[in-house]
Amino acid sequence: MNDHKSDVQNGIFALGAKNTAYQKYFKGQSYQQSLVSDPDINVSVSNVSFEPGCRNNWHQHIGGFQILLATAGEGWYQEEGKPARKLHPGDVVVVHDSVKHWHGATKNSWFVHIAITAGTPKWLEPVTDEEYEKLED
Amino acid sequence: MNDHKSDVQNGIFALGAKNTAYQKYFKGQSYQQSLVSDPDINVSVSNVSFEPGCRNNWHQHIGGFQILLATAGEGWYQEEGKPARKLHPGDVVVVHDSVKHWHGATKNSWFVHIAITAGTPKWLEPVTDEEYEKLED
Repeated sequence: MNDHKSDVQNGIFALGAKNTAYQKYFKGQSYQQSLVSDPDINVSVSNVSFEPGCRNNWHQHIGGFQILLATAGEGWYQEEGKPARKLHPGDVVVVHDSVKHWHGATKNSWFVHIAITAGTPKWLEPVTDEEYEKLED
Repeated sequence: MNDHKSDVQNGIFALGAKNTAYQKYFKGQSYQQSLVSDPDINVSVSNVSFEPGCRNNWHQHIGGFQILLATAGEGWYQEEGKPARKLHPGDVVVVHDSVKHWHGATKNSWFVHIAITAGTPKWLEPVTDEEYEKLED
C-alpha cells in the first residue's frame, strides 16, 4: 500500500512546520505552510498536510468560505448530513459560508491540500473515531 | 534544454481548453481550466498554462487582487517599473489592487500557474517583443 508520504513531503509547496497553533482542533499530526497572509488581501492561502489518520474537527467559516485544492495523497472531505467524499490530487472542494464540515487524510495515506480561506473559523466537536473508522479507504 | 511540456500538460490540474475567450489579450497560445467559478464566492480559481513565449498583456485587477501559485515549468511575472521575476514551481505572487503587471512563460519553457482572482480585469497594451526578448531565460 502506498502511503504517499514522499509525494506529500516533497510536493510543489513546502510541507511547513508542525501545525501547533491549531493542534487543539485536529486529531493527529498536521503541518502548515503559509503561502499568502496579507492584510490587503481578504483570503489567506496555506499548504496544509496531514499524516495518515489525521483530520480536523468539524468547523465552519463564518462570513466567508474555503476552497480546497487537493495536490497529493488521499483524503476525505465531509459536510454535515452528507456522505464523506474521497479526495485525490486535482480534486477541488468549495465550502460555502457557515457550512459545517471537516477534512483530513485517509487512515492509510498522507494528504495535502492548498486551502484558500476567507471569514472567521468556528471550531466545533471532533470527528469521532467511530465516524472516521467506518470510512472505507 | 527541458521545455517542461510534459510537466505542464500532465500536471495536477487539467490543462483545459485553448484560452480563446482571452486570446486577444495574450500573445501566443494559452490554456485555461476553471477550477472554481461560483456566484457565492468572491474569487475565481483557474489553472492557466502557457506555451513557450506566451504571455498576457499588461493588465490590472480593479477593486480586487490576483494570487498566482506556480506549479510547473518556468515563467515570468513583472510589475510596472520593476524587474521581471522568474517563476518556478512553488513560487507565489500576490498582485495588489490595480497594480499593472503581466505574466507568462519563458521563451523556451511551458509554464502553468493557479490563478486566484478577485475584482474586474482591465486589459492594457501588449508586452512588446523588445521587452520580452531581452529577458534572460
